[in-house]
Amino acid sequence: MKLRAIALAVLTLAATPAWSAEPIQPIPAFKPKNPAMVELGKKLYFDPRLSKSGFISCNSCHNLSMGGTDNLETSIGHNWQQGPINAPTVLNSSMNMAQFWDGRAKDLKEQAGGPIANPGEMAFTHELAVDVLNSIPAYRAEFKKVFGKDKANIDMVTDAIAAFEETLVTPDSRFDKWLKGDKKALTKTELEGYKLFKDSGCTACHYGPAMGGTSFQKMGLVAAYDTKSKAEGVAGLTGKDADRMKFKVPTLRNIEMTYPYFHDGAVWTLEEAVDIMGRLQLGREYNKDEIARIVAYLKTLTGKQPDFKLPILPPSTNDTPRPKPFE
Amino acid sequence: MKLRAIALAVLTLAATPAWSAEPIQPIPAFKPKNPAMVELGKKLYFDPRLSKSGFISCNSCHNLSMGGTDNLETSIGHNWQQGPINAPTVLNSSMNMAQFWDGRAKDLKEQAGGPIANPGEMAFTHELAVDVLNSIPAYRAEFKKVFGKDKANIDMVTDAIAAFEETLVTPDSRFDKWLKGDKKALTKTELEGYKLFKDSGCTACHYGPAMGGTSFQKMGLVAAYDTKSKAEGVAGLTGKDADRMKFKVPTLRNIEMTYPYFHDGAVWTLEEAVDIMGRLQLGREYNKDEIARIVAYLKTLTGKQPDFKLPILPPSTNDTPRPKPFE
Repeated sequence: MKLRAIALAVLTLAATPAWSAEPIQPIPAFKPKNPAMVELGKKLYFDPRLSKSGFISCNSCHNLSMGGTDNLETSIGHNWQQGPINAPTVLNSSMNMAQFWDGRAKDLKEQAGGPIANPGEMAFTHELAVDVLNSIPAYRAEFKKVFGKDKANIDMVTDAIAAFEETLVTPDSRFDKWLKGDKKALTKTELEGYKLFKDSGCTACHYGPAMGGTSFQKMGLVAAYDTKSKAEGVAGLTGKDADRMKFKVPTLRNIEMTYPYFHDGAVWTLEEAVDIMGRLQLGREYNKDEIARIVAYLKTLTGKQPDFKLPILPPSTNDTPRPKPFE
Repeated sequence: MKLRAIALAVLTLAATPAWSAEPIQPIPAFKPKNPAMVELGKKLYFDPRLSKSGFISCNSCHNLSMGGTDNLETSIGHNWQQGPINAPTVLNSSMNMAQFWDGRAKDLKEQAGGPIANPGEMAFTHELAVDVLNSIPAYRAEFKKVFGKDKANIDMVTDAIAAFEETLVTPDSRFDKWLKGDKKALTKTELEGYKLFKDSGCTACHYGPAMGGTSFQKMGLVAAYDTKSKAEGVAGLTGKDADRMKFKVPTLRNIEMTYPYFHDGAVWTLEEAVDIMGRLQLGREYNKDEIARIVAYLKTLTGKQPDFKLPILPPSTNDTPRPKPFE
């Protein structure tokens, strides 16, 4: 009996991950179920022919060389239109409970269709985008292989883009190594930063593997956020006063790469972002030293970045509808 | 003596490449002398922080997913300005005797500095671009490794971009395989197309490994070219009437991917391009069948496309000058 109890305890210990007591879990590596669909989606993600101009692709504003963002306050759309909100990172976005800052798309597939047809972004239509793809034999063959149909439709296009985006997770950050038991993965300062981050309440919203993306919260809980942005958050959808300035909590993963910060992209340094979050969300004034420690910790959240070959796109044909950049 | 003569003949035969009687030579593979400089140049090529907006990189208009071009009539620059001329492909551009359509830059290094500071393109200054790079420790370390200096300057930036661009050759097209002796690499129609191409005089200008880039020629030699473009070619530099409409002969390599065609990008199909070239440059009206054969041949000129991982760019810091997309 005694032996059995010991064996059980050992088994339980082995089954309990090192991070079980933490509010944040490591990002698991992702293995796609359908690699052919991922490859097709990757091409589509990089293909500016899904825009009216033939110039803007998903990767233009969610640039995978730059943390899955454009590192601009608000994005540049068709005809250099200024976007209304900061482009959120596509990295780890599969872990979001919903997409866009106001959560108006339920998943990556629904999100992917948005910018293509948004007159302020890619300014195309789903019909024309599909016409372009169906005019290109190499694309048609790839859609056939993946979906078994002779012609693509917008459902297949957004399915494939979403399948590619699901692969864009960033495991193996230094913090994740620490979570998994490598106690040397963080410096003393970084670890102090994590403790302060946790103890002062940041993990109330920034929890889980993505450290965000799992709730809507009011920006400016304790004090109002001073912004020039007209974005109203969830209230823009519900019309409810209670939803004003409620936004999806952004992920903190790869935060060193996804500047500038907040829905208006008005804040360019992590120091200022931490200071504002402390005062507006937690009612706490971090001193300079505390801010430095939290920032040091936040910089340990950069994980493995996208690691694949630049896709080569099949050329258009004589039948391909031509881009209209200046109309 | 007899034996020696035979041995000499055998040796001569072995030393004579299969393509020695042809006006076109296969593109040799390229092995960079300085791989670290190439890696740095690749990052710079993809980095939109070399533009005022933080949105436009070399790859925006010379997109390596799309034959090293933007597949637009004329390019889109800062603030959606319409460019004056079609963006030539960067693929095999190291083989050009000079850069730009009018040859105003003597080499890739000199070319690389042009768009960065052109108000209609990236709209930045060399000084600000260098300031951005020097504010980023990971870039500084890479410049130090490659150039041995603590700070980057514009000379190093354009050296590195040019070193990367030199690697962008496209060997191993089907036509090159044929040139090297693989007689099954082309179909009967494609080979007929090549013979017609050669016999009717196209190789007077489109010769050498790149099939172009080695001379300036008047666009509209036999009859005038009808265009809306205001580009005057070499005359824009020399002011000489004799240089009006003289442009660098473009490479025909990867021509299936580098549409639309000519300096004004007004022609979208190879059929029309071949027809125009025949009438305007050679004084010859190809019939439909001849055009089809030449086009079939031209499509065998697509070689090995760029084959590398998407570069991941080091993030900006608190000291990095911020992009100004809407100024």
